[in-house]
Amino acid sequence: MRTTVGIIGAGPAGLLLARLLHRAGIDSVVLESRDRAYVEHRQRAGILEQGTVDVLRAAGAGERMDREGLPHDGIELRFARRRHRLDLPALTGGRSVMVYAQTEVCKDLIALQLKEGGPLLFEGEALAVEDAATERPRIRFRHEGREDVLECAYVVGCDGFWGVSRKAVPSGLSRVFERMYPFSWLGILADVAPSHDELVYARHERGFALLSMRSPSVSRLYLQVPAGTDAGEWSDDEIWAELERRFETADGWTLTRGPITSKSVTPMRSYVHEPMRHGRLFLAGDAAHIVPPTGAKGLNLAVGDVVTFARALAHRWETGGSERLDAYSETCLRRVWQAERFSYEMTSLLHRAPDATPFDERIQLARLARLTASRAAETDLADGYTGFPLE
Amino acid sequence: MRTTVGIIGAGPAGLLLARLLHRAGIDSVVLESRDRAYVEHRQRAGILEQGTVDVLRAAGAGERMDREGLPHDGIELRFARRRHRLDLPALTGGRSVMVYAQTEVCKDLIALQLKEGGPLLFEGEALAVEDAATERPRIRFRHEGREDVLECAYVVGCDGFWGVSRKAVPSGLSRVFERMYPFSWLGILADVAPSHDELVYARHERGFALLSMRSPSVSRLYLQVPAGTDAGEWSDDEIWAELERRFETADGWTLTRGPITSKSVTPMRSYVHEPMRHGRLFLAGDAAHIVPPTGAKGLNLAVGDVVTFARALAHRWETGGSERLDAYSETCLRRVWQAERFSYEMTSLLHRAPDATPFDERIQLARLARLTASRAAETDLADGYTGFPLE
Repeated sequence: MRTTVGIIGAGPAGLLLARLLHRAGIDSVVLESRDRAYVEHRQRAGILEQGTVDVLRAAGAGERMDREGLPHDGIELRFARRRHRLDLPALTGGRSVMVYAQTEVCKDLIALQLKEGGPLLFEGEALAVEDAATERPRIRFRHEGREDVLECAYVVGCDGFWGVSRKAVPSGLSRVFERMYPFSWLGILADVAPSHDELVYARHERGFALLSMRSPSVSRLYLQVPAGTDAGEWSDDEIWAELERRFETADGWTLTRGPITSKSVTPMRSYVHEPMRHGRLFLAGDAAHIVPPTGAKGLNLAVGDVVTFARALAHRWETGGSERLDAYSETCLRRVWQAERFSYEMTSLLHRAPDATPFDERIQLARLARLTASRAAETDLADGYTGFPLE
Repeated sequence: MRTTVGIIGAGPAGLLLARLLHRAGIDSVVLESRDRAYVEHRQRAGILEQGTVDVLRAAGAGERMDREGLPHDGIELRFARRRHRLDLPALTGGRSVMVYAQTEVCKDLIALQLKEGGPLLFEGEALAVEDAATERPRIRFRHEGREDVLECAYVVGCDGFWGVSRKAVPSGLSRVFERMYPFSWLGILADVAPSHDELVYARHERGFALLSMRSPSVSRLYLQVPAGTDAGEWSDDEIWAELERRFETADGWTLTRGPITSKSVTPMRSYVHEPMRHGRLFLAGDAAHIVPPTGAKGLNLAVGDVVTFARALAHRWETGGSERLDAYSETCLRRVWQAERFSYEMTSLLHRAPDATPFDERIQLARLARLTASRAAETDLADGYTGFPLE
């Protein structure tokens, strides 16, 4: 098999990239190790930045998102039983976010790809990227029981943190930056209308909590728990009781309980692999970097990477110049490091570190108080939350 | 002896308080354990925030400051061999800072106090504050070889971190918040014109450096060194060579050397004692809190405390109401914790922690890059640098 761009992974990054290339008249093949049902149902992120929303619309994948997604113009910070709302468009000159689950983005992109895109091979497991530093990189993969080779002009690794793409960068050229956090998120889905119409980020002495939603009738809620927690350790009643404690306010706000349909624990990690390009292999999304979920940056960063790649390749097609492809890693890393910084700071602002001293706690509260007193501090946060510019 | 306000310590806080009370028609006595020459020559801070400048002027102590002080409308951040200037008035709606040494502030205030203020007893060593929780607090002190008692309506402890005032708060009522840093500042005075006309805060892989000045012909420079360093370990040549390395820029900026007239090492500490009031004893300045020097907040915080006290007492005199005196601790602590946060963040932004991981270093550089890209981030920093509002 032969194609211009071999894409490994049919998560939102790989699927969106195939779509962007298709619209630019560039052919591609997408290899996805899992089956379609798995990809369409794995629970992941749910907050789309303004830039991501704009890209999906421009790619023709915005119709159902605009019909069913929930545009959000604010988030609430909750601490010391107080509530403070950040008005995103007022602070950022009109930018906001959209609540629309990653699974729905994937369903929309898969439907489009199957209708009018290039090949999308489910259960097509990439085994290795070979000859990445040459003009003819190849992907060895297994599909329908036999091994095959996809010959490419470019390979884009959108195969997540555990994928094979990153392994094709020689270790002597790699540099890894990493931080593990001593806590995780216990996340639930519950069949109950969200108790607040915007996201609530709560800092509490007992730990962080987040109120989010998947739809007007499905709540998504998270609790900070110690790293290594098993979701089964928490009964439904214990989860709701703990959420009630952490979201408590002085003005009597209440949380509505409902049947919990899913429970899972997400570990927290910051990770960046430099560089994000090796020859004609380009890493995108979780294949190159991980953020803790506090800033809702993971999916949006992946979108940014493939937008940068698609623009760079289109530039190459139009002008013959490869300077934007050559600058891919540097261009992406500027944005990636701002998102890493933002995610790390949002995490530090709101979580209780097990080794936090009383001084650390006062500094954390002073940071939150600053956000209620300084429009500049609010603007800096709102600006990061709605997303760093795509290049 | 008897007075309305017994003030312990003739640093800038105690001296300014005596001045503010004098102008409000309230009598006071200042006890200072050291002699006049010592107080007038100990090297301390040198950056006055806009609010401090305004208060000194309003107190009639601004004449020489306005003649000899150096108004600064900007600071420079230096990192990765790049230079980035923060335009303070443009970012803060007109506020800036003044370079005028604490020793000079003290000289001016001492001259005024001796000319027209109440008693100022040098070598008057406070031994203890007694009966602080009653209506008749007393200061036991030693002066000219004999012990005496100063009976007061109020006692204000401006006697620094090592003073006796704080010890009068029963330990069961005290709460201490503290952080020690694993590095110190090696500071020099040099008889050479400053190599730049504004302060330069440099982040370098080898550690932080600061270029400051005392006058148009005297440079004040600092190097981050490991905690526990003895100033004698560094020769003059080694100091200049290290300063040159850390201030190096891509555009060929040069540092001019000159004779070093003083070398000393300042440890770095964050410390807050809560509450700042016990009965009729009020703690001000370093007696209640310490900041690392990176944000130049120490002197300015002390000024803020005595301004809050003087206003609260004047309010009591005018209205009979004690609510502002009762709220002294809470009022001051709001500002103190913002300054603690600011000083901690400026320190973290610019210093090299000995245990910093490669991830931490990248986050630090991303923070600095953010300051060059976001007016909101710049504004938040400039706003903190020029000072938090006095209440």
